[in-house]
Amino acid sequence: MARWLIILAGGRGERFWPLSRMMHPKQFLTLMGNHSMIRSTRDRVRSLIGPDNTWVVTGQDYVEKVQTNLPDVPASHILGEPVGRNTAPSIAWAAREIYAQDPDGVLLVLPSDHMIKYQKRFQKLAEMALAAAETQGGFYTFGIVPTHAETGYGYIEQGQEVAHGIARVKRFIEKPPAEAAQEMVQSGHFVWNSGMFAFTARDFLGAVRIQLPVLADGIEELVAHPDGLDRIFPELPQISVDHGIMEQAQNVFVLPADIGWDDVGTFAALARHLPRNDEQNAARGHAIFVDSQNVTAISEGPVVSFIGVKDLFVVATKDAVLILSPDRSQDVRQVVQALKEGQHDHLL
Amino acid sequence: MARWLIILAGGRGERFWPLSRMMHPKQFLTLMGNHSMIRSTRDRVRSLIGPDNTWVVTGQDYVEKVQTNLPDVPASHILGEPVGRNTAPSIAWAAREIYAQDPDGVLLVLPSDHMIKYQKRFQKLAEMALAAAETQGGFYTFGIVPTHAETGYGYIEQGQEVAHGIARVKRFIEKPPAEAAQEMVQSGHFVWNSGMFAFTARDFLGAVRIQLPVLADGIEELVAHPDGLDRIFPELPQISVDHGIMEQAQNVFVLPADIGWDDVGTFAALARHLPRNDEQNAARGHAIFVDSQNVTAISEGPVVSFIGVKDLFVVATKDAVLILSPDRSQDVRQVVQALKEGQHDHLL
Repeated sequence: MARWLIILAGGRGERFWPLSRMMHPKQFLTLMGNHSMIRSTRDRVRSLIGPDNTWVVTGQDYVEKVQTNLPDVPASHILGEPVGRNTAPSIAWAAREIYAQDPDGVLLVLPSDHMIKYQKRFQKLAEMALAAAETQGGFYTFGIVPTHAETGYGYIEQGQEVAHGIARVKRFIEKPPAEAAQEMVQSGHFVWNSGMFAFTARDFLGAVRIQLPVLADGIEELVAHPDGLDRIFPELPQISVDHGIMEQAQNVFVLPADIGWDDVGTFAALARHLPRNDEQNAARGHAIFVDSQNVTAISEGPVVSFIGVKDLFVVATKDAVLILSPDRSQDVRQVVQALKEGQHDHLL
Repeated sequence: MARWLIILAGGRGERFWPLSRMMHPKQFLTLMGNHSMIRSTRDRVRSLIGPDNTWVVTGQDYVEKVQTNLPDVPASHILGEPVGRNTAPSIAWAAREIYAQDPDGVLLVLPSDHMIKYQKRFQKLAEMALAAAETQGGFYTFGIVPTHAETGYGYIEQGQEVAHGIARVKRFIEKPPAEAAQEMVQSGHFVWNSGMFAFTARDFLGAVRIQLPVLADGIEELVAHPDGLDRIFPELPQISVDHGIMEQAQNVFVLPADIGWDDVGTFAALARHLPRNDEQNAARGHAIFVDSQNVTAISEGPVVSFIGVKDLFVVATKDAVLILSPDRSQDVRQVVQALKEGQHDHLL
């Protein structure tokens, strides 16, 4: 009964343009520290699960990038999806491949583009979840203790505690309006859905068979005819694991996790994590600040200089520069859209 | 008695960094229109003086760039100074070379990095000045009718009118304090010193002989021993033509010139000349504006995008980005200084 890691690395996010590009999405960026987000994701649980037991599900276009970032993961463990079909098909495919090798395998599923500050705490919780899945069965989620009334995440309502640090899930709540988020955070019974899970391959595939039989059939066909990938995969139902499996499954549990988690979903989120000088300026890469305050500069090469400005977020690459008000980082897509409409695809 | 053009192209200004670089100063930039400033300077008077009669004095490092920008100017007419010694030695050298070919030559001297909006008016004035120098002798300056109390230029006080549109110069005033500038502009008797001149080679060299005999001797030695350039030139007195010749010369005249002149000395000056959209944004190169106002973007390649910002001036090149408040364009040197101190000379 071995443990297996499944890293979900199919993201094609545009919110980090021009750092992220179509061929270089967020999971391959080094936003914090010295390694790409996918590499940090793997390293974070290396003490629990080694590279030979690691699987990655990504887009076909990104397979090489995954290999470069995780060179000790066996090439056969990197599954390239011809199109994105959301998380349920991704996890089902990897779980089925693992099941074929180890029918008793226990799976830890991690998105590849999150930040976790308190690594030791997370390792302990992951260990707890894997052990519980191994011995008790069921589906384990990691619920982030909220720090503010975020409307960009899903929430999980905690029910009865079944063991120290493990509670039943009462219900999943999709991204809420501001008022509802406020109430949930104040009540103390709700945590953020981090998209990280632990369960056995058997439990998961059993739930897929019952709840998403079309997906189960498709995955069986795929495993029987690996050459048919480009034909079979696009036909799989497009559905998230939260919605397709977790919300309806029996025996779903949550481990409240105060682990300094952040999905670093926008430049504003990234800005929160960079060290600042006395004038509240922060830089990654070469920046020069003259009489400037509260400026964040991220450069992939060009030296970026500021004179007499404040409250800016700037990203500079060789072929694109983005300058935005820090409260507008949700709107980066508008620029990406303008580039698409202007047929400047080489910049995307 | 032919007419000759002397273009002064020795500038090494830092105020346009990162557009300008040590090896690519302002006179070679295309700040407005479709041509470099030096090329525009030459084209502006092409109907008066052809390329065969054009001379350029520049830094040794820039000789090739001048040739590229002005390919029809004879290579022997491009004088490369081993060091900058200000304008009196530059003009004296070129005037002496021209004098050797044409002792009766009349010279039009133009800086290479100014903008003139009303070309026809300027051509007419240049024609007037050349004709007056030819027939009457004397030193002719072009005095720009002031549009505001600029403290960054020298002023010329106009005296008695000697012909329609030509007045005696009463005195030259160096860059004045704000109050003095205000008074001069209000009086209506003062114009800006544009650094453009007309005189015969004979008159000019005669004045050099009397007022700057050390320079006159040095230039004679240089012409006799062209191989000694690197030794002789650095020994020449460092002095401007205004201070060394014009201020003390007899028969100095000024032609008031309402010609849309601008020395485009800073990014702020440049910003004034760019066309703006309804939100007061202006761009040279590829820029995308989302909810932004009063932003000027100059790009030498990278696409520059703005979201929710205002009152910025941005210059983007492949290896350097400058972001400044529009009222701080005098302070670009501070960034250049920081780069020097940080030994990032490759960026200068």
